[in-house]
Amino acid sequence: MTIPDFKDIIDAHQLIREFIHCTPIFTSSAIDRLIGAQIFFKCENLQKTGAFKFRGACNAVFSLTEEQANRGVGTHSSGNHAAALSLAARMKGIKAHIVMPSNSPEIKKKAVAEYGGIITLCEPTLQSREVTLSKIAEDLGIVIVHPYNNSKVIAGQGTATKELLETIPVLDVVMCPVGGGGLLSGTAISAKAISPYIKVIAAEPTGADDAYRSFKAGYIIPSIKPKTIADGLLTSLGEINFPIICEKVDDILTVSEESIVKAMRLVWERMKLIIEPSSAVPLAALLENKERFSNLRIGIILSGGNIDLGNLPF
Amino acid sequence: MTIPDFKDIIDAHQLIREFIHCTPIFTSSAIDRLIGAQIFFKCENLQKTGAFKFRGACNAVFSLTEEQANRGVGTHSSGNHAAALSLAARMKGIKAHIVMPSNSPEIKKKAVAEYGGIITLCEPTLQSREVTLSKIAEDLGIVIVHPYNNSKVIAGQGTATKELLETIPVLDVVMCPVGGGGLLSGTAISAKAISPYIKVIAAEPTGADDAYRSFKAGYIIPSIKPKTIADGLLTSLGEINFPIICEKVDDILTVSEESIVKAMRLVWERMKLIIEPSSAVPLAALLENKERFSNLRIGIILSGGNIDLGNLPF
Repeated sequence: MTIPDFKDIIDAHQLIREFIHCTPIFTSSAIDRLIGAQIFFKCENLQKTGAFKFRGACNAVFSLTEEQANRGVGTHSSGNHAAALSLAARMKGIKAHIVMPSNSPEIKKKAVAEYGGIITLCEPTLQSREVTLSKIAEDLGIVIVHPYNNSKVIAGQGTATKELLETIPVLDVVMCPVGGGGLLSGTAISAKAISPYIKVIAAEPTGADDAYRSFKAGYIIPSIKPKTIADGLLTSLGEINFPIICEKVDDILTVSEESIVKAMRLVWERMKLIIEPSSAVPLAALLENKERFSNLRIGIILSGGNIDLGNLPF
Repeated sequence: MTIPDFKDIIDAHQLIREFIHCTPIFTSSAIDRLIGAQIFFKCENLQKTGAFKFRGACNAVFSLTEEQANRGVGTHSSGNHAAALSLAARMKGIKAHIVMPSNSPEIKKKAVAEYGGIITLCEPTLQSREVTLSKIAEDLGIVIVHPYNNSKVIAGQGTATKELLETIPVLDVVMCPVGGGGLLSGTAISAKAISPYIKVIAAEPTGADDAYRSFKAGYIIPSIKPKTIADGLLTSLGEINFPIICEKVDDILTVSEESIVKAMRLVWERMKLIIEPSSAVPLAALLENKERFSNLRIGIILSGGNIDLGNLPF
């Protein structure tokens, strides 16, 4: 795999533009007053399938050769990437094989099935997921699309920040959450290419701070038993993502669970937008570091809005 | 009071345009598939103060003479109109006196206070609310701004549908909820003036169906002990609103509480938008009457998004 650059993001945007939503950018004077900064929220919770993941999945699927496409794609995932890949494949008219642990919530299985994904259940271990997917890939010759450790996926995710900066060209800071690093690496490539003066700052739950520790150490430290309400950020950094992050990201801030819930509630109450806990992590970092960001113009990628309404933290 | 016409709505729009949000119009392919129609949601939940009420309050406040404005405005309300009038007054630089029942939820008192409203608590009866407000009006000479039985308020509310039809000019039906009739009468004036072929259809909870019964009877039947989760729709129709509704509204549909909660959950889950139960009532009517609306192009005013997150119906 090669490390993508901004040219790849421009190409990705050209390729996927007709399939994705150019999501709106919203502001909230109440939240601006509370933080003491001017914040522009790029609403990827309003993206198709309810998350930025659809951008990367689309770019991966629509970049396939016809021969690859005919064999189909696959991934093991129980989250937003699975739904995104399923819909992207359906729009391309090909099959998406999704390996999901047997204990995945019904709501997630239902979402994947609705978007046309072909579900194969496996034991709820990473090993079983990988083995099951490998077997399908071997049998059917499908292309495995990793949720973040994939150049096409990274380039797709970078289109969100490209759109943000095309609409709001002058920003001091761009922020996003970091899990596996797909969104963060794409964000950093776009932001630094468009303006080298923009700081790219990621936010991560303290209970899943492998990216923070890896960033400080200079080598990938895997996530071991992470524990956070931000269930999209449990994964370890990818090998393609890490060098991009080391080169282009200015800082990673960690935040408490309490701040995540507080930030999420703020967006729900003040902006009337449903975001999932992972999306609230950058705003949580602002809540915890008001002085540092005082009076700045800040773009935040609201990464997604998929949450079980029957199990809310408030 | 005179009955407003479309010219008043055009004037209102001109007057308030710089103060309000021109709210976005969203669609959902999942909801369209479910209903079998094409639905355009005008997102007044994203309006300032989280509800369409800000339009009417703004028009009332900015239409005052300087002498009236200097004395201030007032209302008795515990809901969205109180917050809307408070913010409109603050933007005009004048005082808003809000009479609220002493048992109003803290969250509502807080919202009014945050927008700068001056709260006077009273006994939790309609009589006490009216007497308390009259006394303030007498003492201070303020202008009382009724939440819906007011020409300026009606004209302001009508600007939402004007914006909707300026963006989506070809619609078969425009729908909104009906409580006191401020939104519905403004909606009907705009829709019928812009296109006489558009059907204007209101939706109302069966548990608070005074508008439905009044519409069928031809005279105002007051709401007695209404019971519904749609707490913005408990009031009786106003005297200015009723003749407009009789003349311009094509039908009023009543819906069950179950459908309201189902429709609300659909918008939360599929559109990632927080709407209050009252806003979900038109979509609930579509859920209950799919055949009637099959293949039509339908505009719905999502009236507001103010809801206590600590007390959700799911």
